Amino acid sequence: MSEFDLIRRHFTRATPNALLGVGDDAALLQVSAGKVLAVSSDMLVCGTHFFADADPCLLGHKTLAVNLSDLAAMGATPRWATLALSLPGADEAWLERFSAGFFALAQRHQLDLVGGDTTRGPLNLCVTIMGEVPASLALRRDGAKVGDEVWVSGNLGDAALALAHLQGRVHLSGSEFDAVAKALHQPQPRVALGLALRGIANSAIDVSDGLLADLGHILAASGVGAEIELAAMPVSAVMRSQPALAQRCVLAGGDDYELCFTAAAHHHDELLRIAHELNLPLTCIGKAVAGKDCIVHDASGSSIQLESGGYDHF
Amino acid sequence: MSEFDLIRRHFTRATPNALLGVGDDAALLQVSAGKVLAVSSDMLVCGTHFFADADPCLLGHKTLAVNLSDLAAMGATPRWATLALSLPGADEAWLERFSAGFFALAQRHQLDLVGGDTTRGPLNLCVTIMGEVPASLALRRDGAKVGDEVWVSGNLGDAALALAHLQGRVHLSGSEFDAVAKALHQPQPRVALGLALRGIANSAIDVSDGLLADLGHILAASGVGAEIELAAMPVSAVMRSQPALAQRCVLAGGDDYELCFTAAAHHHDELLRIAHELNLPLTCIGKAVAGKDCIVHDASGSSIQLESGGYDHF
Repeated sequence: MSEFDLIRRHFTRATPNALLGVGDDAALLQVSAGKVLAVSSDMLVCGTHFFADADPCLLGHKTLAVNLSDLAAMGATPRWATLALSLPGADEAWLERFSAGFFALAQRHQLDLVGGDTTRGPLNLCVTIMGEVPASLALRRDGAKVGDEVWVSGNLGDAALALAHLQGRVHLSGSEFDAVAKALHQPQPRVALGLALRGIANSAIDVSDGLLADLGHILAASGVGAEIELAAMPVSAVMRSQPALAQRCVLAGGDDYELCFTAAAHHHDELLRIAHELNLPLTCIGKAVAGKDCIVHDASGSSIQLESGGYDHF
Repeated sequence: MSEFDLIRRHFTRATPNALLGVGDDAALLQVSAGKVLAVSSDMLVCGTHFFADADPCLLGHKTLAVNLSDLAAMGATPRWATLALSLPGADEAWLERFSAGFFALAQRHQLDLVGGDTTRGPLNLCVTIMGEVPASLALRRDGAKVGDEVWVSGNLGDAALALAHLQGRVHLSGSEFDAVAKALHQPQPRVALGLALRGIANSAIDVSDGLLADLGHILAASGVGAEIELAAMPVSAVMRSQPALAQRCVLAGGDDYELCFTAAAHHHDELLRIAHELNLPLTCIGKAVAGKDCIVHDASGSSIQLESGGYDHF
């Protein structure tokens, strides 16, 4: 199978959102009137982001999900993506399952794969995702204000707990692992939430490197501090049964792909209504304050000393 | 050095073309009124596209150049790019030279680096490039018409000849190698030519996999054949001194990053004028004909039997 056959067979689908899709030197895309383009790239490397024996269907899902999560955090509507792959060989069965996982998620978000590249080399998956948002409604990192409430979606730390189990650092029962493994292998990008937060959130980020690291980016960009309550953190039942690991998984675990955002306190009830409508828990975990530090209080109100920031590749 | 320090130090420059550049979940870009977005991704892998000991400055240039070449082949004006890197380690000296080569070329084309990703893993460089073009003037592959003249820019085959020398398949003198090595290491994307061809060329492609393979894409997409003349091929003096290798390097070498395009015969003189203005040779190498084959004639007029199509990773 040639490189072109491979692209044709596994990565060429209809591209109703594009003027010109896969198969020319570049795709041609019309950005909607009144919208600006939101663009982000994420690269997933075998051995760094996933194991070599990862289920290719789940990997296809996750490769796109982590990119959709970036658009969600901007309040952008997903529209297009390119996918560049470096593959050790042309493994038809692997490609079929990878592309099935990728396109199932793409279709759910009406996203077109409009181009990319396929080459031989160590397994590496690079997506550039493009969406649209009215410029004035984009959810940036630098808009948090003193007095804002700090919120997160979903539960935190389950992906890190599942990884700890896979790495032998904790032992979960089969049913416990199943309950948290979905967060690691099939994160659900919070695209609908991002859209619902337009005009409500003052700042937003997706939690990929751990809550404290990512909230820290909001605080640094906005020039504010925060006080957050450990007891308020949304965690799963499995996480609650692992008190020794919980704090680290929840605050610094990474790979959550939930949204962390800030909003004025008068939006509190509206956010609870959005949570109900989206069937997605939204939890107020603290508030933005003057200063530049992020202080975490435990249940007794004492501030917690933390070891490390978050995930860092270098 | 952390991942964020690394990005800040080596990959964060002013982004005058962007509403929001590096440092949020996504960049925000305003596409100009009356233009559509042209998007392309290319991934360069160590061991497949370049040697591990490649000069990082030249590699930075080439990583962007091959992407600019795709925009040139669409007749698009370069505007923005994202760069995702997988790096074996945080080698400051390497990164400084790589980014110097990348940004020197970016600046020459007023292109902003607006985002990307940095991760640990086998050396891999993935650029997604974005440009603008009026939709009706984009140079597509599918517009070639019977009777069109077939043209190429620059010289063909020098990059393949330089690679053959590096791989020990031919021995060039020092000055001969220097003369052709520039084509391999520092290809000059034909952006100005792409813009000049708007409204003149009926189809275009950049020659990255070898002339016959890439011209073949135009012919297949356009539903036409072609007759081309081997004797007409633009080649360097060094190439002329290597008759045993010339045919294969010129027709199937790859890595040329010249433009191959077709245009109605009445544009012939205008194209020669453009060549003069851009100080870039443009050579008519044949014409598009009815049918679907590409026939290559040698100097005596006989058709040549060819071995293989072009570069294929799989």
